[in-house]
Amino acid sequence: MKNLKLFVLVIIALVGLSFAANAETMFLASDDFVGITFWLISMGMLAATAFFFMERSSVSVRWRSSITVAGLITGIAFINYMYMRGIWVQTGDTKTLYRYIDWLITIPLQMVEFYLILAAIRKVPSGIFWRLLIGSLVMVIGGYLGEAGYLPSRMLGFIIAMAGWIYLLYEIFSGEAGRAAAKSGNKAFVTAFSALRMIVTVGWSIYPLGYVFGYLMGSIDINSLNVIYNLVDFVNKIAFGLVIWSVAMSLTGTRSK
Amino acid sequence: MKNLKLFVLVIIALVGLSFAANAETMFLASDDFVGITFWLISMGMLAATAFFFMERSSVSVRWRSSITVAGLITGIAFINYMYMRGIWVQTGDTKTLYRYIDWLITIPLQMVEFYLILAAIRKVPSGIFWRLLIGSLVMVIGGYLGEAGYLPSRMLGFIIAMAGWIYLLYEIFSGEAGRAAAKSGNKAFVTAFSALRMIVTVGWSIYPLGYVFGYLMGSIDINSLNVIYNLVDFVNKIAFGLVIWSVAMSLTGTRSK
Amino acid sequence: MKNLKLFVLVIIALVGLSFAANAETMFLASDDFVGITFWLISMGMLAATAFFFMERSSVSVRWRSSITVAGLITGIAFINYMYMRGIWVQTGDTKTLYRYIDWLITIPLQMVEFYLILAAIRKVPSGIFWRLLIGSLVMVIGGYLGEAGYLPSRMLGFIIAMAGWIYLLYEIFSGEAGRAAAKSGNKAFVTAFSALRMIVTVGWSIYPLGYVFGYLMGSIDINSLNVIYNLVDFVNKIAFGLVIWSVAMSLTGTRSK
Amino acid sequence: MKNLKLFVLVIIALVGLSFAANAETMFLASDDFVGITFWLISMGMLAATAFFFMERSSVSVRWRSSITVAGLITGIAFINYMYMRGIWVQTGDTKTLYRYIDWLITIPLQMVEFYLILAAIRKVPSGIFWRLLIGSLVMVIGGYLGEAGYLPSRMLGFIIAMAGWIYLLYEIFSGEAGRAAAKSGNKAFVTAFSALRMIVTVGWSIYPLGYVFGYLMGSIDINSLNVIYNLVDFVNKIAFGLVIWSVAMSLTGTRSK
Amino acid sequence: MKNLKLFVLVIIALVGLSFAANAETMFLASDDFVGITFWLISMGMLAATAFFFMERSSVSVRWRSSITVAGLITGIAFINYMYMRGIWVQTGDTKTLYRYIDWLITIPLQMVEFYLILAAIRKVPSGIFWRLLIGSLVMVIGGYLGEAGYLPSRMLGFIIAMAGWIYLLYEIFSGEAGRAAAKSGNKAFVTAFSALRMIVTVGWSIYPLGYVFGYLMGSIDINSLNVIYNLVDFVNKIAFGLVIWSVAMSLTGTRSK
Repeated sequence: MKNLKLFVLVIIALVGLSFAANAETMFLASDDFVGITFWLISMGMLAATAFFFMERSSVSVRWRSSITVAGLITGIAFINYMYMRGIWVQTGDTKTLYRYIDWLITIPLQMVEFYLILAAIRKVPSGIFWRLLIGSLVMVIGGYLGEAGYLPSRMLGFIIAMAGWIYLLYEIFSGEAGRAAAKSGNKAFVTAFSALRMIVTVGWSIYPLGYVFGYLMGSIDINSLNVIYNLVDFVNKIAFGLVIWSVAMSLTGTRSK
Repeated sequence: MKNLKLFVLVIIALVGLSFAANAETMFLASDDFVGITFWLISMGMLAATAFFFMERSSVSVRWRSSITVAGLITGIAFINYMYMRGIWVQTGDTKTLYRYIDWLITIPLQMVEFYLILAAIRKVPSGIFWRLLIGSLVMVIGGYLGEAGYLPSRMLGFIIAMAGWIYLLYEIFSGEAGRAAAKSGNKAFVTAFSALRMIVTVGWSIYPLGYVFGYLMGSIDINSLNVIYNLVDFVNKIAFGLVIWSVAMSLTGTRSK
Repeated sequence: MKNLKLFVLVIIALVGLSFAANAETMFLASDDFVGITFWLISMGMLAATAFFFMERSSVSVRWRSSITVAGLITGIAFINYMYMRGIWVQTGDTKTLYRYIDWLITIPLQMVEFYLILAAIRKVPSGIFWRLLIGSLVMVIGGYLGEAGYLPSRMLGFIIAMAGWIYLLYEIFSGEAGRAAAKSGNKAFVTAFSALRMIVTVGWSIYPLGYVFGYLMGSIDINSLNVIYNLVDFVNKIAFGLVIWSVAMSLTGTRSK
Repeated sequence: MKNLKLFVLVIIALVGLSFAANAETMFLASDDFVGITFWLISMGMLAATAFFFMERSSVSVRWRSSITVAGLITGIAFINYMYMRGIWVQTGDTKTLYRYIDWLITIPLQMVEFYLILAAIRKVPSGIFWRLLIGSLVMVIGGYLGEAGYLPSRMLGFIIAMAGWIYLLYEIFSGEAGRAAAKSGNKAFVTAFSALRMIVTVGWSIYPLGYVFGYLMGSIDINSLNVIYNLVDFVNKIAFGLVIWSVAMSLTGTRSK
Repeated sequence: MKNLKLFVLVIIALVGLSFAANAETMFLASDDFVGITFWLISMGMLAATAFFFMERSSVSVRWRSSITVAGLITGIAFINYMYMRGIWVQTGDTKTLYRYIDWLITIPLQMVEFYLILAAIRKVPSGIFWRLLIGSLVMVIGGYLGEAGYLPSRMLGFIIAMAGWIYLLYEIFSGEAGRAAAKSGNKAFVTAFSALRMIVTVGWSIYPLGYVFGYLMGSIDINSLNVIYNLVDFVNKIAFGLVIWSVAMSLTGTRSK
C-alpha cells in the first residue's frame, strides 16, 4: 500500500506524457485522436469492470459491497464512454451533457465508497453516508445546472459545485469520515484512505479547472478538454477502485489466513 | 435502517429538485430532456440490477430469492427504458403502453416481494402471496384497460385500478401481511417493512395522480408526465430493492456472525 | 405446494381475461396487439431465465440440473420470441414454423424434466428418460410435418402428434414415471408432480386445439392463434419451471436445514 | 452410462429422420430449409453451452476443465452457426470455409478432451496430449488446404486429412490413450470413453463422406451437404459434451457422496 | 510443465505452417484471407477469455488475480480483433493504430503478470511491479509515437521501444524479477517462468521485426504483416495465459490436495 501515492503520481505523469503527445496530434488528425482516447478509455473501463466483478469473490464478505460498487462505477463509465464515442464518430460533437449522466451516478457512488470502506472496518455513524451523498449531489447538479445554462450565470453553478466539493474535502479530511479513518488504527487502511483522498483532491481538481478554462474563460478548445477528461477519468475511476481492491485484498489476507 | 425514511425523503426531495430543473428545461430543449431522463434512469436501473445480482451471494440463502426478484424488477425496467428511449429518440412519441408492459411484470413482482421477505423471516400463510398477486394484477390490468380505451370509460379503469391499490394498501398495513410483519418482533425488519409500505403508498401515488391529471383532466403535458414517471420509477424500483438488500444484509449479519 | 393447482387456475383465468381483452383489441389495432404480447412474453421469459439461472445455486446439488434445464427452456423461448417479434414487426407475418424451432428443443427438455426430478429424489430406470424423449420427439416432429405440409394430409400429422402426446400422458400418469412418482412417498413432491402433469394435460391441450381450429377447420384467425399461443406458453414454460423450483427449494430446505 | 450407445443410435436415427424430411423439403423451399437448420442448431449449441457452463460447478474440481472445454466447443460452434446463418440469409451462399474456422478450434479441443478426461481419472503421460493435438491439426489443416484448393489436388488434401483421422482413431483405440482408458478399471468411465470413440469414429465419418461425395465426386448438392453437416454437428458436439458431463457427474457422485 | 517449451515450439511451427499456406493465399484472395485470420483469432481469444474466467475458480485464491488478468488480456484482444475485423471488412484498411489501443492495455498487463505470479509464490518487493509497468509503457508508447509519426524520425521511436524491451528482458532474466523466480525453489514454477520469458523474448521479437521490415525498410506488404501479427498474437496472448493457468493448477493441486 505504501506505493499508492507513487502509483497516483506515475499515472498523473503518464497522463501528462499522453497529453503532451496528444497536443501534437491535435494539429494532425484532431478529430481522430479524440475518438482514440474514447476507445482506449472504454477498453480500460471494461477491463476494470470485469476485474472488479470477478475479484470481489476473493475478498472477505464485508468488503464485497465496496468492490461491487467500484465495478459499477467503471461499468457505467464504460457504457457512457461507448456511447460518447459513438456520438463523437458520427457527429464530431462532444456533449459534455453525457458526462453529467455518467457523473450523476458515479460521483455519488464514489463518495459513498468512503462510507462503505469505513463500514467494512469499524462501526461508523450513518450520518457520514448521507452527508457524502448529499454533498456529491450538490456538486454534480450544481455544475450541471451551471454548464447547461439553467442558472442565471455560469459562475453561480461553479460556486455551488465548488462549495459541494470543498464540503466533501472537509468531510473526508477533517470531518467525521476523516476522523473515523484516523481512528481505525490500521496502517494499510489509513494509507489507502489517504490515496483515495488524494484522488478526490488532485484528480478531481481537473474538472473545475476544465470548467474555469473551458467555460468561464473559453481559453481551451473543446477537443483538448475531452482528451483531458478522458485521461483523468482513467485515473479517477480505475485507480480509485484499484486502491479499494488493494486494501480489501490486504485486509482479507490479514484476517482469513 | 433507521435512516430509511430519511432516505425516501431525500430521494423525493431530489426528484423534486430535478423536476424543478426539468420544468425550465422543457422550454429550452424539451424533446432532448425527456431523452436524457430515459438515459439516466436506464443507467441507474442497469447499475441496480448488477448490484442486486452480485450482492445476492452475500446474504443468507433464505433472503436470496428476494434479492433475485429485486434485480429482476430493475432488470426488466432497464430493458423497457432502453426500449422506450429508442422509441423516443426515433419518433418523439412516448407510448405509455410500453410502461404497462413493464408494470404488468414488475408491479406484481414488487407486491410478491412483501410475501418473500415475510417468508424469509417467519412462516406465513401462502394466502398472502395470492392476494398480493391478484390485487396487483387487478390494479395494473384495470389501469391498462382504462388508459388504452378498452373500457366504456377511462374513469371505470381508474376506479378498478384504485380499488386494487387500496386493497393492496389494506393488505400490507392492516391485513394478514401487515399483522405478520408486526408480529415478527424484529426491529430492523419492521422498519424496512414500513419503508417499503411508504414507497407503495407515497411513491406509487404518482401513477394515479398522473392518470388523473394526464388522462382524465388533460392538464399535464405528456412530456412532463414522462419525466415524472421516469424519476419516480427511480425511487420506486431502485430504493425499493435497496431497502430489501439493506435489511437482508443486516439480518444475515445478525445470524451468521 | 398445495396452492399450485390454484396457481394454474389463476393463470388460466388470467389468460382468459387477457384474451377477452385481446379479442376486442383485435378490431382496434390487431397487428399492434400481437406484437405487444410477443414483447410481454419475451420479457417474462427473460426474467424467468435469469431467475432460474441464479436460483439454481440455492437448491441442493441433486436438484440443480433440473433448474438449469428449466432456465434453458425459458431462455430458448426468450430468444425465439425476440426473433418472432422482430419478424412480426417487420412483416406482419407469424411463421408458426419458428414456434417449431422452439418446440423441437423445449418440449423434449420439458419431458426430460420429469425424469430429472424423479432422479433427484430416488433411483429411477433410465428407460423412463428414453421413452419421454422419444415420445416428445414423435409428437413435435409429427406436428411439424403435418403443419408444414410434408405429409400426405394434415390429419395424419395431427394423428401422429396426438399419439405421441397420449403416450406421454400415459407414461407420466400410469406408466413407469407415474408409478415412480407415486412411490416416492414425499407429499410435496407428489403435489408438484401432479401440478406438472396438469400443465402437460390442460396447458398443452391448447396446441392441438389450435391445430384443429386453426389448420384443420380454419375457424380461427392466425392473429388470435398467435395471442393464444403466446399467453399459453407463458404458463406452460414459466409456471412449469416455477413448480420445479418450488419443490426443489422445499426439499432442499427439508434436508439441509 | 450404459444407454450411451443407445443415445448415439437414437440421435443418428433422428438425424436420418430429419434428413428424410429435409430431402423432401429441398424441392419445396430449399433455401429456407437450410436456414432453418442453421437456426435450430444455433439454439441447440447455445443451450448446450449454457448448460455446460452452469453445470461445471456441480462436478468435482478435477472434472471442471473438461466441462469448461465442452462448453467452449459448443460456444464457438454457436457463434459460427449464427454467423453462417447470417451469411446464408443474406447471400444464399454457404462458405464451407467458415466451417473450417470453427473446426480449426473445436476439433483440436475435442481431441484434447480425451486427454483431459483421462487426466481427471489417473496420471497420464503428456505425450498423449501432444499427439492428439498435432493429429487433429494435421487432419483439419489438411482438409482445409485441399478443400480451398491450395494443394496440387483435392485428393492430396483428402489423403492428409484421412491420415490424421486414422492416426487419431489408432491413438484412442489401440494407442497410449486407449490403453490408459482400458487400465482405468472404472466401468462407467470405460463406457463413456467408448461412447466418445464411437462419436469420433461414426459421427466424424460424415465429414470425409461429405468431402468424397460433395467435392471429389460432385454427386451431392451443397444444400444437402449443409443440412447434413448441421445435423451431424448437433450430435458430434452436443452429445460429445453430454457424455463427458454424464461421466463427470457420475464419478463426482461416487466420490463426494 | 516440462512440455511448455515444446508447446511454444509447436505453436511457432504451426504459425509457420499457417503462414506458408497464407503466403500462397495472398495471391488468390488476399483481402479475404486477412479477414479470415481476424475471425479465427477473434474466436480463439473469446474461447481463451471464457476459459480463464471460468477456470479461475479452480485455482487457489492467491493465483486468481493472475488468471483474471490473463482473461482480461485475451478479452481486450478479442474486442479489438472484432473491431479490426469490422474495419477490415468495410474498408480493406488495417489501421496498425488499433493494435496500439490493444497493446497500450495488454502489454503492461502482461508484464504485470510476472509480478503477480511471483507474488503468488513468495513475498516480492513492489519495485518489480513499477519497473515492469514503466518499462512496458515506455516500449509501447515509444513504438506508437514512432509509428504514428509524432517523433522526428521513425528510427527514434524504434530505439525507444527497443530500449524498453531490452530493459524488460534484463529485468525478467537477470534483474530482481529473474532472481526472485530463481530463488523460488519450485521446479514447476521456474519452468513456467522460463516459458513466459521465452514468449516475451522470441514471440515478442516479431513486433520489432515487423516494424523494421514493414515501416523502416518497407519490404513487407501490410497484408502479410497483419496475418503475421494475428497469428503471433495467438501465441503471445493465449499461450502466455495457458502457461500461467497451468502452473497455477499444478501448484494449487500440490497444496490443497
